[in-house]
Amino acid sequence: METTKKSHYLMNAWYVAALSTEVDAEGLFSRRLLDTPVLMYRKQDGTPVALLDRCPHRFVPLSAGRRDGDDVLCAYHGLKFDCSGRCNHNPHGNGHIPDAARVHAFPLLERYGFLWIWMGDEAADPAQLPDFGPLTDGDPNGVGYTYMHPACNYQLVVDNVMDLSHIDHLHGEIISTRGQLSPQVPKLREGARSVSARWEWKQTPAMLIFANFLADPQAEARHFFDITYTPPANIQLSVGAIQGPGNLDLDDTTGQYDLHTCTPETETTTHYFFATRRNHNIEDAEYNRMKIDAMHQAFVTEDGPILDMQQAAMGTTDLFSLNPVLMSSDVAPVKVRRLLQRLIEDEHALKLKLAS
Amino acid sequence: METTKKSHYLMNAWYVAALSTEVDAEGLFSRRLLDTPVLMYRKQDGTPVALLDRCPHRFVPLSAGRRDGDDVLCAYHGLKFDCSGRCNHNPHGNGHIPDAARVHAFPLLERYGFLWIWMGDEAADPAQLPDFGPLTDGDPNGVGYTYMHPACNYQLVVDNVMDLSHIDHLHGEIISTRGQLSPQVPKLREGARSVSARWEWKQTPAMLIFANFLADPQAEARHFFDITYTPPANIQLSVGAIQGPGNLDLDDTTGQYDLHTCTPETETTTHYFFATRRNHNIEDAEYNRMKIDAMHQAFVTEDGPILDMQQAAMGTTDLFSLNPVLMSSDVAPVKVRRLLQRLIEDEHALKLKLAS
Amino acid sequence: METTKKSHYLMNAWYVAALSTEVDAEGLFSRRLLDTPVLMYRKQDGTPVALLDRCPHRFVPLSAGRRDGDDVLCAYHGLKFDCSGRCNHNPHGNGHIPDAARVHAFPLLERYGFLWIWMGDEAADPAQLPDFGPLTDGDPNGVGYTYMHPACNYQLVVDNVMDLSHIDHLHGEIISTRGQLSPQVPKLREGARSVSARWEWKQTPAMLIFANFLADPQAEARHFFDITYTPPANIQLSVGAIQGPGNLDLDDTTGQYDLHTCTPETETTTHYFFATRRNHNIEDAEYNRMKIDAMHQAFVTEDGPILDMQQAAMGTTDLFSLNPVLMSSDVAPVKVRRLLQRLIEDEHALKLKLAS
Repeated sequence: METTKKSHYLMNAWYVAALSTEVDAEGLFSRRLLDTPVLMYRKQDGTPVALLDRCPHRFVPLSAGRRDGDDVLCAYHGLKFDCSGRCNHNPHGNGHIPDAARVHAFPLLERYGFLWIWMGDEAADPAQLPDFGPLTDGDPNGVGYTYMHPACNYQLVVDNVMDLSHIDHLHGEIISTRGQLSPQVPKLREGARSVSARWEWKQTPAMLIFANFLADPQAEARHFFDITYTPPANIQLSVGAIQGPGNLDLDDTTGQYDLHTCTPETETTTHYFFATRRNHNIEDAEYNRMKIDAMHQAFVTEDGPILDMQQAAMGTTDLFSLNPVLMSSDVAPVKVRRLLQRLIEDEHALKLKLAS
Repeated sequence: METTKKSHYLMNAWYVAALSTEVDAEGLFSRRLLDTPVLMYRKQDGTPVALLDRCPHRFVPLSAGRRDGDDVLCAYHGLKFDCSGRCNHNPHGNGHIPDAARVHAFPLLERYGFLWIWMGDEAADPAQLPDFGPLTDGDPNGVGYTYMHPACNYQLVVDNVMDLSHIDHLHGEIISTRGQLSPQVPKLREGARSVSARWEWKQTPAMLIFANFLADPQAEARHFFDITYTPPANIQLSVGAIQGPGNLDLDDTTGQYDLHTCTPETETTTHYFFATRRNHNIEDAEYNRMKIDAMHQAFVTEDGPILDMQQAAMGTTDLFSLNPVLMSSDVAPVKVRRLLQRLIEDEHALKLKLAS
Repeated sequence: METTKKSHYLMNAWYVAALSTEVDAEGLFSRRLLDTPVLMYRKQDGTPVALLDRCPHRFVPLSAGRRDGDDVLCAYHGLKFDCSGRCNHNPHGNGHIPDAARVHAFPLLERYGFLWIWMGDEAADPAQLPDFGPLTDGDPNGVGYTYMHPACNYQLVVDNVMDLSHIDHLHGEIISTRGQLSPQVPKLREGARSVSARWEWKQTPAMLIFANFLADPQAEARHFFDITYTPPANIQLSVGAIQGPGNLDLDDTTGQYDLHTCTPETETTTHYFFATRRNHNIEDAEYNRMKIDAMHQAFVTEDGPILDMQQAAMGTTDLFSLNPVLMSSDVAPVKVRRLLQRLIEDEHALKLKLAS
């Protein structure tokens, strides 16, 4: 499999390669994932395909070529590849197809509104993909998706979401938590391959994304955040607000079920995907559009510049080598970094063992 | 001679430094060639001059200065250099001119509408410049010149022209060969310092650049391509079409005599020069202008992006290190790469021998 | 102290960090100095402060945050730092402030219209700052300040000013010296930590910046330049013109007292500050503005491009490694380079001695 330097990433894992809507019925969609160029397209039956985006003849991106049914033609000399990555037509000379005339085909799963790619050498394991079913269960006007592209290592985005106390300081009115998160040490729950954190608090008024759906928009409300990290870089986040009695969960509160998930483009650039399904006003298409646009703008104008500056200032992707001062709010992101580091080391150890 | 890293190029050879028309009677023309800044200008009698474009005092480009008769004045402190590269005036102190106050003067030949430069340490050998006389023999309205600047190693441009089968796949209507080249294995001829390839085929209609000059523009015509590579990076290409009896050569066909020639700017950027003389409609200035513009556009919009993407995807200039799949159409470009590699190695070996 | 690679600079010295006017009463001003990000602001009493511009928690620039009285709040998680660089408020958890939660505070002096910073490990020594008092003595309309940002090593700017013969060749009418400097070998004076050079000459007419203030603007005038380098990169320059009897100094001539001073941003980019006080027409605000704008334009359009090209051509910051041809006009800049090199080596030697 011809890909470039990548051993610093967890390889045997599902990463989001694209929003389902980014790969349409006709086109060729190219994106660099884990430092590797990947071509995605859909077969005529709609099944998504992911191939190494590099012709094995002269290394031109296949995405510069064109579709031919379920196959792809290289723009430069017309080699044709099927969706398994095998060359099935060589227009040159006697048409002999060398065995090496193939490109790697990456396992893909289409779930929860995303295309998930498996780029490691081990067999792709669908059971490793967590269940984000709530995203797909419900009215199409109750869910929104967006894509961001920060110029930082993906772990800085994960740090950002795992320490939600930053909302107290960085974010503006629409998701302001009014200083209520920072004084708390979030409650942690750890699994074999997960780290969860939970905050519960009161604020007046409620977070503005929820206030107008509560009985008294100006009054105090109880809130919760509950987030769960799973490798390689998924963070499922639930958040809700309630006035009066009830549990702090998505059954009882006015809230939403979100997924933040990152895929490294390179060591210092990240594909950052976000999905959100709310449990209120779920049929309002106009509100849905406004809401996802506002969330996107909050990321892009508030988190984005900070993440980019942070990466530029660090000048490395090894946070701990810089001896950061750690605070109580770092407990969850530090657990995540250690879990991920251990998984990457385990993967290397296994690879070395298999090779010996 | 003060030049920077270059040992990976064939040095003792004639490269095109500029179109004759690029270096005018008045100005100072600067171009980086083989990673070396070169100043070109014309003496008052029209003779072209090439000097290292770097004052030996404080390393400012001489091209930032100004002409003084046949000499050049450095902009910064006024040292004056004659066209042999010797400082002939120092305005400072007692006017003493240090021996080291000189810049390398490169041998130049003006032939066939180009300025050819010799950048190696061995004596310049005019006999090494191939004869491209047909470019200069004939009506001025029958010949066109152009310059392109792809962001790739020069050998990718040579590969491109040596494997003309790409025309079947990459190029649009004006030079379409309608899939007729790929099934052929071109006929090779090899010399001590040359590689030639030849294709003969029929297509309907003829290549559009010729069809309107044939008896029946819509009918089938016989065609040929005949190309000859000579070092360092010249490819002389003849192409023609004919209906009815006659030889497949430029005497009998409606065709043209072209020169593609490349000079490395850096390892990954190339000065790509092209000249073409046709044997039909040779006095039509308007057609001449339209024709060279169309050829230029075909290179820039069709080959150019592919070459740039290819270089970016390779991430190296050593094609063979990437284990490319080779096909029958690669026979000529691979022979050329091997010949050039051998000449470069011979040059190094000779240099080592002379040094020992 | 957390700063990045810098050992090639003289560290225990006063560099200009900013014009006094660049750091205003309200804002946060950030500038990279000696490869280190520095935040500057003014306390409510006007005292300037310089802190390392990097939060020790997650390395976001503090300049992205906001003022809170005399303190600064980090934008990302709200850590607050006082003007000594100590964290004095941690909004997280129980509010404990780790000892490591501090940033380096750099000694600053505000003198002569500039903020001077001391970035070395040794104790800041105000006595090391030379006296540029004439800049601040006199009418506010008799002095001008400006800032340039050439893309070259700071020593190329120092070379430029230490060899004023370049004015003969590079500069236009307003400061033309009409070829009178180059024939001279400037008179040198050397101190333990200074290098001075002096030129005296006649020209007709006088330098245009002075001619209209002399009795006969078209007639010959006697002139002088007297410049003194002090480390790390200050050049005090006095220049004047006189017709008739009198001394060639600023008491007798129509002239000006200037300071050129450089601070490395990086190895190949420089903060170049300039101040000038004249001894004539000193209350004319409109002329003052016009004059400093014209000087700024002369640097930016005449010296600037040459300095940038020189750096690009050199491809290194080690001038002597390129074996430059040296001329009589290089005597002062070469002395300065040797003095500075010796001071840097002494500083390293002392550091090694203290460390052993």
